[in-house]
Amino acid sequence: MDQAQMEAAQKMMQQHLWALYAFNAGLLVLKMFILAFSTGVVRSMKKVTPNPEDARAMGTQSSSKADPDVERVRRAHLNDLENIPVFLLISFVFIHTQPNLALSHFLFWAFAAARFAHSVVYALYPLPQPTRTILFLIGVVITIYMIFANFVFFMNPLVQPFMMKN
Amino acid sequence: MDQAQMEAAQKMMQQHLWALYAFNAGLLVLKMFILAFSTGVVRSMKKVTPNPEDARAMGTQSSSKADPDVERVRRAHLNDLENIPVFLLISFVFIHTQPNLALSHFLFWAFAAARFAHSVVYALYPLPQPTRTILFLIGVVITIYMIFANFVFFMNPLVQPFMMKN
Amino acid sequence: MDQAQMEAAQKMMQQHLWALYAFNAGLLVLKMFILAFSTGVVRSMKKVTPNPEDARAMGTQSSSKADPDVERVRRAHLNDLENIPVFLLISFVFIHTQPNLALSHFLFWAFAAARFAHSVVYALYPLPQPTRTILFLIGVVITIYMIFANFVFFMNPLVQPFMMKN
Repeated sequence: MDQAQMEAAQKMMQQHLWALYAFNAGLLVLKMFILAFSTGVVRSMKKVTPNPEDARAMGTQSSSKADPDVERVRRAHLNDLENIPVFLLISFVFIHTQPNLALSHFLFWAFAAARFAHSVVYALYPLPQPTRTILFLIGVVITIYMIFANFVFFMNPLVQPFMMKN
Repeated sequence: MDQAQMEAAQKMMQQHLWALYAFNAGLLVLKMFILAFSTGVVRSMKKVTPNPEDARAMGTQSSSKADPDVERVRRAHLNDLENIPVFLLISFVFIHTQPNLALSHFLFWAFAAARFAHSVVYALYPLPQPTRTILFLIGVVITIYMIFANFVFFMNPLVQPFMMKN
Repeated sequence: MDQAQMEAAQKMMQQHLWALYAFNAGLLVLKMFILAFSTGVVRSMKKVTPNPEDARAMGTQSSSKADPDVERVRRAHLNDLENIPVFLLISFVFIHTQPNLALSHFLFWAFAAARFAHSVVYALYPLPQPTRTILFLIGVVITIYMIFANFVFFMNPLVQPFMMKN
């Protein structure tokens, strides 16, 4: 391959990794919106809301009491909030570390699958523990792996300017 | 236009989209900080805090009881947390999909306006429903539109490597 | 320096800023995971959980009652959620504004140090106020500084297309 061909191949690879990122980010955010709407649906069904203006619209009373079904969906959503945005920030750096393509696909799709399954067993169809904890840990381990892959890749660029005094 | 002029025009377009992103991200994060400080202000005014060290500084007692005014500001802030970071992640991908410039301006400023109005009618000056829900939905619909625009743009780069076996 | 050398130097500088970002993002997200696990550990120790399936695994009863120790760690985690992802979004734009290198190092490491100290004095070893508030404000001020630095840098690219009617 000559120079121009190599640059074209590199650019195609980078676009492919961005595409992988775009699809994962989109699906995960859509999933978070589904949980957000589920909270609203469960609130309407059980007629539980902390806001007086919502209570008026539902024809009920507002209440600061927590309903167990509403709280379960909210906890599932909060767990997403704790894990998905930071994954999307870390993995965006990761796709710029010239990662192996097959490994990248594996990590992104495993993360997405684990988070979708986590939402199902948390909010929709509770399974005995440690099912939920294992699914949560899969996401955490993938994020931590990417963090350290980023550290390894960016170690040299970080220390280089300080080593060029000669 | 020759090659160099076209590259310069493309680069200027990309800088313009980054500028649009930078201004929206900055304004939305400033808004989130205002809500964070409002929580603190309402807590001080009503002397309600869950932390004993805060209670000592206020000359009151800590309490696990939720105050309706504090909780209202906190829910407005939490709703921002659920919507703004994911929008900023999705829209960052979106500005790299060569979007129409007028459409991009419309989507970004409509999102910002809806979120600012959402905070006002949630935390500051509650209006009858479905005002708040409509403002929330504007943000969600814009984010979902961008997700699908990203899917369409990155569909080809995602499947390309698997179609080059010949 | 000729053209090629200048481009190489610029590229090295950009890689260095990405490296600074990658290390900060990684360390801050690892810290958030430590708080997430601490919540789980405190829940297990005090046998307090809102989920029946967790209660079964712990051999106890689920409870909607908030335990003060669990809630303290959760509030520390929630404060991270309110501050760290938005910082990582804003600072990612910031490293593309050709910032001074020494200043960038100062801002990133000061933010990380303040957030680590914030978690310690919130969740682990509570100190009298206003210690925690000051640490929180350091993070907020750094983020706001970056927001305005982004505004200044991207002001021209934002208005340029509208000034080229001649």
